[in-house]
Amino acid sequence: MTDFRLDWDRAARTGIHEAVLCESKAVAQVEAIAAHAAGLGRPLLFTRLGPRKAERLSATVRGLLDYDPLSRTAILGDVPPAAGPPRVAIVAAGTSDLRVAREAERTLRFAGEAATLLADVGVAGLWRLMEHVDTLRAHRVVIAVAGMEGALFSVLAGLVPGVVVAVPTSVGYGVGRGGRTALHAALASCASGLAVVNVDNGFGAAHTALRALGTAHDRSPRRAGRMHRA
Amino acid sequence: MTDFRLDWDRAARTGIHEAVLCESKAVAQVEAIAAHAAGLGRPLLFTRLGPRKAERLSATVRGLLDYDPLSRTAILGDVPPAAGPPRVAIVAAGTSDLRVAREAERTLRFAGEAATLLADVGVAGLWRLMEHVDTLRAHRVVIAVAGMEGALFSVLAGLVPGVVVAVPTSVGYGVGRGGRTALHAALASCASGLAVVNVDNGFGAAHTALRALGTAHDRSPRRAGRMHRA
Amino acid sequence: MTDFRLDWDRAARTGIHEAVLCESKAVAQVEAIAAHAAGLGRPLLFTRLGPRKAERLSATVRGLLDYDPLSRTAILGDVPPAAGPPRVAIVAAGTSDLRVAREAERTLRFAGEAATLLADVGVAGLWRLMEHVDTLRAHRVVIAVAGMEGALFSVLAGLVPGVVVAVPTSVGYGVGRGGRTALHAALASCASGLAVVNVDNGFGAAHTALRALGTAHDRSPRRAGRMHRA
Amino acid sequence: MTDFRLDWDRAARTGIHEAVLCESKAVAQVEAIAAHAAGLGRPLLFTRLGPRKAERLSATVRGLLDYDPLSRTAILGDVPPAAGPPRVAIVAAGTSDLRVAREAERTLRFAGEAATLLADVGVAGLWRLMEHVDTLRAHRVVIAVAGMEGALFSVLAGLVPGVVVAVPTSVGYGVGRGGRTALHAALASCASGLAVVNVDNGFGAAHTALRALGTAHDRSPRRAGRMHRA
Amino acid sequence: MTDFRLDWDRAARTGIHEAVLCESKAVAQVEAIAAHAAGLGRPLLFTRLGPRKAERLSATVRGLLDYDPLSRTAILGDVPPAAGPPRVAIVAAGTSDLRVAREAERTLRFAGEAATLLADVGVAGLWRLMEHVDTLRAHRVVIAVAGMEGALFSVLAGLVPGVVVAVPTSVGYGVGRGGRTALHAALASCASGLAVVNVDNGFGAAHTALRALGTAHDRSPRRAGRMHRA
Amino acid sequence: MTDFRLDWDRAARTGIHEAVLCESKAVAQVEAIAAHAAGLGRPLLFTRLGPRKAERLSATVRGLLDYDPLSRTAILGDVPPAAGPPRVAIVAAGTSDLRVAREAERTLRFAGEAATLLADVGVAGLWRLMEHVDTLRAHRVVIAVAGMEGALFSVLAGLVPGVVVAVPTSVGYGVGRGGRTALHAALASCASGLAVVNVDNGFGAAHTALRALGTAHDRSPRRAGRMHRA
Amino acid sequence: MTDFRLDWDRAARTGIHEAVLCESKAVAQVEAIAAHAAGLGRPLLFTRLGPRKAERLSATVRGLLDYDPLSRTAILGDVPPAAGPPRVAIVAAGTSDLRVAREAERTLRFAGEAATLLADVGVAGLWRLMEHVDTLRAHRVVIAVAGMEGALFSVLAGLVPGVVVAVPTSVGYGVGRGGRTALHAALASCASGLAVVNVDNGFGAAHTALRALGTAHDRSPRRAGRMHRA
Amino acid sequence: MTDFRLDWDRAARTGIHEAVLCESKAVAQVEAIAAHAAGLGRPLLFTRLGPRKAERLSATVRGLLDYDPLSRTAILGDVPPAAGPPRVAIVAAGTSDLRVAREAERTLRFAGEAATLLADVGVAGLWRLMEHVDTLRAHRVVIAVAGMEGALFSVLAGLVPGVVVAVPTSVGYGVGRGGRTALHAALASCASGLAVVNVDNGFGAAHTALRALGTAHDRSPRRAGRMHRA
Repeated sequence: MTDFRLDWDRAARTGIHEAVLCESKAVAQVEAIAAHAAGLGRPLLFTRLGPRKAERLSATVRGLLDYDPLSRTAILGDVPPAAGPPRVAIVAAGTSDLRVAREAERTLRFAGEAATLLADVGVAGLWRLMEHVDTLRAHRVVIAVAGMEGALFSVLAGLVPGVVVAVPTSVGYGVGRGGRTALHAALASCASGLAVVNVDNGFGAAHTALRALGTAHDRSPRRAGRMHRA
Repeated sequence: MTDFRLDWDRAARTGIHEAVLCESKAVAQVEAIAAHAAGLGRPLLFTRLGPRKAERLSATVRGLLDYDPLSRTAILGDVPPAAGPPRVAIVAAGTSDLRVAREAERTLRFAGEAATLLADVGVAGLWRLMEHVDTLRAHRVVIAVAGMEGALFSVLAGLVPGVVVAVPTSVGYGVGRGGRTALHAALASCASGLAVVNVDNGFGAAHTALRALGTAHDRSPRRAGRMHRA
Repeated sequence: MTDFRLDWDRAARTGIHEAVLCESKAVAQVEAIAAHAAGLGRPLLFTRLGPRKAERLSATVRGLLDYDPLSRTAILGDVPPAAGPPRVAIVAAGTSDLRVAREAERTLRFAGEAATLLADVGVAGLWRLMEHVDTLRAHRVVIAVAGMEGALFSVLAGLVPGVVVAVPTSVGYGVGRGGRTALHAALASCASGLAVVNVDNGFGAAHTALRALGTAHDRSPRRAGRMHRA
Repeated sequence: MTDFRLDWDRAARTGIHEAVLCESKAVAQVEAIAAHAAGLGRPLLFTRLGPRKAERLSATVRGLLDYDPLSRTAILGDVPPAAGPPRVAIVAAGTSDLRVAREAERTLRFAGEAATLLADVGVAGLWRLMEHVDTLRAHRVVIAVAGMEGALFSVLAGLVPGVVVAVPTSVGYGVGRGGRTALHAALASCASGLAVVNVDNGFGAAHTALRALGTAHDRSPRRAGRMHRA
Repeated sequence: MTDFRLDWDRAARTGIHEAVLCESKAVAQVEAIAAHAAGLGRPLLFTRLGPRKAERLSATVRGLLDYDPLSRTAILGDVPPAAGPPRVAIVAAGTSDLRVAREAERTLRFAGEAATLLADVGVAGLWRLMEHVDTLRAHRVVIAVAGMEGALFSVLAGLVPGVVVAVPTSVGYGVGRGGRTALHAALASCASGLAVVNVDNGFGAAHTALRALGTAHDRSPRRAGRMHRA
Repeated sequence: MTDFRLDWDRAARTGIHEAVLCESKAVAQVEAIAAHAAGLGRPLLFTRLGPRKAERLSATVRGLLDYDPLSRTAILGDVPPAAGPPRVAIVAAGTSDLRVAREAERTLRFAGEAATLLADVGVAGLWRLMEHVDTLRAHRVVIAVAGMEGALFSVLAGLVPGVVVAVPTSVGYGVGRGGRTALHAALASCASGLAVVNVDNGFGAAHTALRALGTAHDRSPRRAGRMHRA
Repeated sequence: MTDFRLDWDRAARTGIHEAVLCESKAVAQVEAIAAHAAGLGRPLLFTRLGPRKAERLSATVRGLLDYDPLSRTAILGDVPPAAGPPRVAIVAAGTSDLRVAREAERTLRFAGEAATLLADVGVAGLWRLMEHVDTLRAHRVVIAVAGMEGALFSVLAGLVPGVVVAVPTSVGYGVGRGGRTALHAALASCASGLAVVNVDNGFGAAHTALRALGTAHDRSPRRAGRMHRA
Repeated sequence: MTDFRLDWDRAARTGIHEAVLCESKAVAQVEAIAAHAAGLGRPLLFTRLGPRKAERLSATVRGLLDYDPLSRTAILGDVPPAAGPPRVAIVAAGTSDLRVAREAERTLRFAGEAATLLADVGVAGLWRLMEHVDTLRAHRVVIAVAGMEGALFSVLAGLVPGVVVAVPTSVGYGVGRGGRTALHAALASCASGLAVVNVDNGFGAAHTALRALGTAHDRSPRRAGRMHRA
């Protein structure tokens, strides 16, 4: 028995590539998976790989990875160049939400999609959001990242016509601790049509965006390139 | 032993008049209290007196009450005329929140305060709120009433300088059921300085407003008249 | 002050039409809104209008409505003919989930979108789902409706490439009561890219689907027709 | 893209100054914000800046800050002298609640308001509270800080006429852990008119007090001075 | 198999008599138990026997019962005369808490103990409680019955030296709904030594009191008489 | 303002001595309180004083304390000799529950009461409990300490006639984590008359026992001695 | 599309027959399913079919059903005679738990298994359980049914060697309401090896028992007869 | 008083051997228990013995233990050889679930049962599970170990006829944190007959399996050997 079996056909089936959640894996397990994928010449995305765990990987494996500490992601293999202008915008309500926003951005990038990232546009100073509305309306998908009370989700969904993916974050304290309040605010929003994902799940939000862009359906050249790389 | 002891001196102590929460009281108990207060010639406010319970009161007692079914409140004794222009605005996010907004309005009125009431100004259509901002900024206190995700609280607190009392309502379903989501949104708001009260507590919100107006401290003529009536 | 203000421009802004949630509104309020919209010649969707409340509407208003008791929806105005083959599939895990599935179908239909509806394809008998996989893969969006433990969401997201909207339902008892378990299963799914909405929110799921179809962006003829009707 | 955008006009709009919640920000981010504000010559309040994070700031930035470890607050710029006698009293139920009480005091001071601070006056020894009642009644606002079961909030609200802001703290264990019990006690209090804020939110309580004092409305000299400093 | 087996020896073992919780039993089951006990000539206490269920009992059985609708209790057999002055005081915070207070009183009475019952002495008007302190201090056990935020428990435990049994009630709404807030307040109280029972459990509170009075240990005459009757 | 005010008269009022909960206090605060009490020649009990915090106290203060690391308690002043045979038995379900059981024992001892302590008598091996039943029945009060599912509380209350104080502990994992399951089991027990205290609250359980023993009422010599020592 | 698709092959696959949960199905849906199965000559079990819903079925369908109101189950087709002595014992802690115990018994009977049913053997009177221990030890599977605090599960699992299936019930109030406490007690039990099912799920407990008896594996004659009937 | 009393007769009574949960025990307590058992020549299983605690044991005791860091288990005494082919299969949904799967395997092994262990067969790539179905169907018991949304439990229970023990794990984040979602999914599963144990309880799952194999009942040679060894 080996400890892991990667699902290399997932992209063909669902348009979503296999990735490795490192949070509850041992350093040795992460290392074995990376070596295995490198041996096959396949790119792979690692998420929730904290700095301390990353440092404990062997120098060989670390040399193969493009590591980003803020988002705690690593990419094995070449990051593909983005084809065309961004179709996804990512909006972070506060500076503290940037780590999750960046996880979404990196996941999109791994799939060959560029993204427009806007930071610190929460609703306590509404003008900060308002001056970006036209920009946001020009994207097919907007990923909104917010903690605390998550009011950003409702305001945004009332202003833009595309897919709005709500990513609640665990930023907050007291009743806001752990992201439950922001999550519930997204689900109970009076502005309908939000696509909600789990707390701090920037990775999943990117995948929801990719599904909405219809990549696997369209067989567009951009996607084809991506497939080739894998 | 009698079943109840009213606290007639509370107004002198705290500026807040005694009131009777009818929800878990028997019809006979409500009736006994009303008769007792009427015998003393003292005005009294009854809250959460549902239509069915109100109908089961004796004709004599009902004749003494000014009953409002939407807010489920009844006033025993003369409703005092409001002195001067409204210092409190009440904003209801949706039509369904009006019953709670009206409970706040009636409680204020019982204390001699008029209020400006605005309905259906939720954030999914932000323009509906925006066109009232100047009006709202002109009041000393704004009572915001909202269910579902309660995004109205944060947006409002970022726009007006006075006291903002947040009253979450139980309007909603799924994770929004029972008002917990709106309550937590108010408490975890990124816009600071909100004064939060319990779910559906329009009565308490009015009292928070009265305390903020400083009625008991100011000994203003408006208040004096109120005291006289009692 | 009137009690309601409809947001007729929402479709232009977000591609999502105004609708009326009837659950916590009085019969008189529903009636006033219907009369108002009818007077303006505008179509309107009513959701969560239970049979008992529907029966208490005046004969005049009821004559204007196309009412469906299973989904508890009513449409005021002509239901537009669906343009083209269905782009959305709706999958209900059990017979009991059909009421929510049908709310999604009616909401789509109100926006001019036909849908393919499949019932009773839960995972306890996996073959029932498997024989539909090719059909499901051919749709741009799949709306999955399931209560209890919501295992359908994960299985489905691992099999199809398009947008998968997860609608947890309140079908279940014990720890499954109220839909919280199915909701959390959708959010914590090991199969990424799910777009989750609130419990029993077939209406919201349809809107998420419409956003994903890019209706407002595309300005497709199908949508134009819809706009004309309004 | 920069990571942050400060809202310098908030004071003009709401009477509440911009402040920086440091809890989930990196040291580099806190440092960048401090340097930015210092460059503009603007004062700024930092909250939840723990001693370990404070020590990791550069010597230059630390030299600009007035840091208080108990309340975990830092003030950039001159602390304005308090104008006139205190209008706000702060009451801490136990010694352990002092850190939150002090956060409120520092936030008020940053806005030019002095406060009277009373410690260890919980209700298990009621006489400790009773001997301060006259003092408390002489203030416009009382901020009550309590953890565990939060009985102090109800007792206090029954005794004083002004605004009573309830700040539940996370002091406690078992069912009292995390402050949820004290929070719910404040919200469900039988003594009406409490203004409740989030658990451990001394900062927000001070802002609620400032709104109640009507600073932005009154344009009083005390406030004007404050504006000038900014 | 019969459906029930009464534990007639419990009193000998624990000093606590067998009683029948009727809430989830069918009318036929309650009737069978009553007939069985009557046939044996044994007294029995029935709790949570709502008026509607009581009315559906046969006339024969009803004739055997001393029924009290407020507390929803019925006693089969003679209620023993109380021996000596009350050793237990029962304090109800509000009028709405009386039904639970009375369940405690009836349970004590069934065991031959009289009780002093005081109503409407909540802490919002502290003087109402204060004028009874000497009376309360003279009892061996005080049963405190309170809903909402349950501040009464802490205040009382700080004032009297005997056993204080805290009975939270389900009186309240919003976060206070169902009695969870009052329960947690009793458990997290800063005044130590409270003996807490389940929400609305007046029956259990009486038993805690009986255990504290040491009835079974003391083999006092009062108890002996009780035993004889059984 | 000083940070603390001890309530030396509490014993006279309630028979319960003042004690200091150290968990959320700084080392300096604990030290100041100890020095203050020592200066007055008054004994004092410190609870939840973890080994690491205890080590950081000054040598002078540590020399004054009788410290017990398992229970995390320290006694300032002479521990009084126990007068007479134990009236309280303490039963710990598992070895892990001993730390809480010992906190109860130390608190009793500080009040001059000896206790019988039995360990590892959980219900999975019922015979271990059964062979102690006669011993337990001979005590006026039994304090039962159990985590996990807390079945011990119900079994015990069905076997002994005296006061049974239930102390749930936080021993457990999964749904048992934090002690909530054991707490709810104690409150919902089918064996009535349990006196429940907060999770891990051995200190409070001892106080409940002291109240039940009627110390303050009885003015017994044992107590008088205790008073003298203080 | 039809609304339902029965999984007739499930028994061959898992040894567990298809059954119909009626709780959230309309009368018409139940009726259609019953008619469909009757037309195919297949037996079928209906669960959670309340008396009121059962009465609204057509006389034809009702004539085909063996209905039991206590357990709310109906069997379509002949109930097979039990082959051999019971291998499963069912223990109900209280009279109120009988409805769930009986659902388990009926489900077993539908699969051709007899069961020994014992009622009212809760742990408050431990002797009631103890006198049945030898009987219980003689069965391969014991299904324990208990609400409130569920102490029965732990006591039983410490005494018998076979499979112990724990079925928590919703009998209880306060913290015991809805069965969550009994469920958690079963899961956190100190007596290991319990097989826990959902609250009130007598049906599932019977299936767990059938799996443990190894029916589908053994291909025993008893089972073969069952298969033949289907 | 000693701190522990081992229940050596448990195996005779229930077929389940005594084991020691080390999580909340001090190193000294674990050491004392191990020395005690070694002195008696009895084998013993230690669970939740983390690496750091294991390292702090004396060299003597460590020399007696067969320690496995992944599962955090230690076996004192000889591990018995497995008799015959495996009757239990263990399925881990992800690599992160292996630690719990291995705890089950070690517990079985301690009882003389071999097991087949399969890793990384979650439902997002359904084919990984499907290719093992025949293997799984050939075992009497399948232990399924899964975190996150736990969809594996339902899919598996629909495919295999034997006992399926569901072990939810705490692998996950956001709403999946702590294993509550996987636990609820197992309990609310639409595929009936699951035997659920507590979160992360691989130990208990093994015991449920042993009970289902009927070891204690059968007195099979395999078991006899086990008994002899003890």
